[in-house]
Amino acid sequence: METLSTNKAHGGVQGVYRHASTSTGTDMTFSIFVPPHDAGAKLPVLWYLSGLTCTHANVTEKGEYRAACAEHGIIFIAPDTSPRGDDVPDDEGYDFGKGAGFYVDATEQPWATHYRMRSYIEDELPALIAAEFPMADMARQGITGHSMGGHGALTIGLRNPDRFRSISAFAPIASPLHCPWGEKALGGYLGDDRATWRAYDACALIDDGARVPELLVDQGDADNFLTEQLKPELLQTACAHAGIDLTLRMQPGYDHSYYFIATFLAGHVGWHAERLKRG
Amino acid sequence: METLSTNKAHGGVQGVYRHASTSTGTDMTFSIFVPPHDAGAKLPVLWYLSGLTCTHANVTEKGEYRAACAEHGIIFIAPDTSPRGDDVPDDEGYDFGKGAGFYVDATEQPWATHYRMRSYIEDELPALIAAEFPMADMARQGITGHSMGGHGALTIGLRNPDRFRSISAFAPIASPLHCPWGEKALGGYLGDDRATWRAYDACALIDDGARVPELLVDQGDADNFLTEQLKPELLQTACAHAGIDLTLRMQPGYDHSYYFIATFLAGHVGWHAERLKRG
Repeated sequence: METLSTNKAHGGVQGVYRHASTSTGTDMTFSIFVPPHDAGAKLPVLWYLSGLTCTHANVTEKGEYRAACAEHGIIFIAPDTSPRGDDVPDDEGYDFGKGAGFYVDATEQPWATHYRMRSYIEDELPALIAAEFPMADMARQGITGHSMGGHGALTIGLRNPDRFRSISAFAPIASPLHCPWGEKALGGYLGDDRATWRAYDACALIDDGARVPELLVDQGDADNFLTEQLKPELLQTACAHAGIDLTLRMQPGYDHSYYFIATFLAGHVGWHAERLKRG
Repeated sequence: METLSTNKAHGGVQGVYRHASTSTGTDMTFSIFVPPHDAGAKLPVLWYLSGLTCTHANVTEKGEYRAACAEHGIIFIAPDTSPRGDDVPDDEGYDFGKGAGFYVDATEQPWATHYRMRSYIEDELPALIAAEFPMADMARQGITGHSMGGHGALTIGLRNPDRFRSISAFAPIASPLHCPWGEKALGGYLGDDRATWRAYDACALIDDGARVPELLVDQGDADNFLTEQLKPELLQTACAHAGIDLTLRMQPGYDHSYYFIATFLAGHVGWHAERLKRG
């Protein structure tokens, strides 16, 4: 693992690191904020998965999460959204290919070779974090994300309820099976058999039996993607049928930008901290 | 004045605007955050002047100031650091020309035509703000800034003690007369007569009689520019001789980046708010 940068911030260290990923077959970059802590302390971990077109850098620069992480003693990890590099196939659209990995393990060529973001986020990167950051308490993990990354947080959390004690999202794609972004991406990465998509659809996972005690979702009501792509009402229906306690907060006047995320991310850090610190 | 963008954030509105400047003879862009407020309320104004290579965007995206401005009811304004455009002369260096206006009115050609950032920041932009943002209480203004912008905040504040009730800075250039950045910029914009530079040097202004009750400065002790360019000890000496109450906080481990600024900017907002809200 190579250190690209470290900067002291809010009493802790904001780092950016690169490593050779066996999952994607490429170098991968991620950021991690380690708050101030006593020697030997073990700190809960909050994962943040980013949206379309993003790298680790967007939330790292614009997320306004560090003060809250320092206050609550939470490690904050922001991975990239896809494999990168000249050898990695891409698409002309912003919503497929590089910057748009959708947190799936692709099965269709030419994508299957490198687009293995599910394995990367679920298995490889947590193992690397555990090995390289001994203060990270991998027994206490939460997950959140924005838009495509909200979809990632919900689906990874729902598939791994024993690992993630707390799951939240900002303006998530509630059901890739039922929106243009999702149909393009899952069709491209996984092929035409929509049954294989269900492991990557929060609503389908819940319909198929996945259970967690609660979910927190913030959604701006001035979000341009709300009705065509995000559709929080589908998540609401799935959670109601399954008895999952969904807190869906429609935030008046907020759009899809990092100004929206940064307004509420500190609150999410506190919400996760409360759950990750329970005995 | 043209609206480039508005985004709801922390209950207020982060806006970016462009207007034709008579001072610089160019279009100028600035950002302004107006926090949530009651109809008819008048809110204090905090100016933030940015450093070398920056535009309004750096602090707007990375500054982490909006939560504090919303809490304290403070309007936050971030101007650009120089005139822009194909007609504007430039220099190959990052530390002179575009992105490096040093908040002076240049007297030397080819700079004197457009590089009139003193007039722009001191006169034109405040008049525009007063006209376009009726909630801005121009009787209660504070000023801060970073590096070159810290120099700008100190010098503009010291020259206008009746207008600015509170002055602070992050890692300011304490004395352009005594560092390479300052000598290059003031020599280029103002010519060889160093007597004309003194109106643009915080230490010289104090030595020449400028008085304010107090100054707040944060400075990282891991800042690469500390000893060659910034030299806070010169400001310390000038303030000690003049009886100005300087609070200089050397922050251990912090560098010159926005991670440093963002760690302490919310605290500066509160410090200014306390002074701007006194009866």
